Amino acid sequence: MGAVSAVDRDRAPKQDRSRATRQRLLEAAVACLAEHGWAGSTVSAVAERAGVSRGAAQHHFPTREDLFTAAVEYVAEERSTALRALFPEGGADRHAVVSALVDLYTGPLFRAALHLWVAASHEEQLGPRVTELEARVGRETHRIAVDLLDADESVPGVRESVQGLLDMARGLGLANLLTDDGGRRERVVAQWARLLDDALG
Amino acid sequence: MGAVSAVDRDRAPKQDRSRATRQRLLEAAVACLAEHGWAGSTVSAVAERAGVSRGAAQHHFPTREDLFTAAVEYVAEERSTALRALFPEGGADRHAVVSALVDLYTGPLFRAALHLWVAASHEEQLGPRVTELEARVGRETHRIAVDLLDADESVPGVRESVQGLLDMARGLGLANLLTDDGGRRERVVAQWARLLDDALG
Repeated sequence: MGAVSAVDRDRAPKQDRSRATRQRLLEAAVACLAEHGWAGSTVSAVAERAGVSRGAAQHHFPTREDLFTAAVEYVAEERSTALRALFPEGGADRHAVVSALVDLYTGPLFRAALHLWVAASHEEQLGPRVTELEARVGRETHRIAVDLLDADESVPGVRESVQGLLDMARGLGLANLLTDDGGRRERVVAQWARLLDDALG
Repeated sequence: MGAVSAVDRDRAPKQDRSRATRQRLLEAAVACLAEHGWAGSTVSAVAERAGVSRGAAQHHFPTREDLFTAAVEYVAEERSTALRALFPEGGADRHAVVSALVDLYTGPLFRAALHLWVAASHEEQLGPRVTELEARVGRETHRIAVDLLDADESVPGVRESVQGLLDMARGLGLANLLTDDGGRRERVVAQWARLLDDALG
């Protein structure tokens, strides 16, 4: 577990320290992937960034694939939790919900996920794991969107309206990759929130 | 210009042969990028795939960046022309137009462009060229979409409705990268074609 003094060892239970190390590694992995892409993302680079020894990193994540898929999953879960916490009461303004959903796709998490996704399309070891991960994260995001938008999926077309919104959000994230697309994005979000509001009734 | 016999040399004017070689290189470059990503795409690999000598390839495209940005631009133009040709009369069914627009983002061109895009986000030599290319291709696709959908951009919200549609198409392309997403995509396209039809009047 790296250079931890005997005093620290007494203060925090071993399990907590281990969890904190794991979390630091996961956050460093997402930042690394977002900045340098898959080719520039190794376990060593992440360990250094997190201030953790390479051995400790490998104790938590035996392979590069383990580390980066776990990282994208962890950060996606954190963001889902944060998104739900933004609207604790339900019955939120739909424009605000659409904005918050789109925000999921414009930060470092989306950038990291995109690099992983693209690498998985031609790296055999990554393919099945990332496909499965994306399906899981996609289902969870859809569930949150349906709840927050107060959408009734038993009505024909509602499910597809919400799916199309999340596809649009993903496309907006991609458009934001090379240039700051914030101004245009805001206008598109406002208009699509109106269309969705009509569609969902 | 590689191994061309004296007979061929007489048959086709030099300029035509040069143009045909260039075109073969561009098409091979897009296929290579779509299959192997930026890291696996070199001028040599493309020259071999196109059946052209490395020297001839470098005569046409002095650098790797020249070849791959030209390739994505060339194929994007070909696809734009093909898309316009699909609906020569105007007044086409909006669902058919939306389907055809979304199809632009699910084939090898989108895959190639995506690899180039993602590489450009952390390769300095590629960044400005790809940003400029994407802006140009994006504007042209928007113009085509407005024409084919018979959309009146002087009406508030119409421009943003069309932009959001193209963002959704891009997001659908991304969703199709790792798994065949055709069934879901068709249902999303049908629903959003309906919503857009209402919005555009």
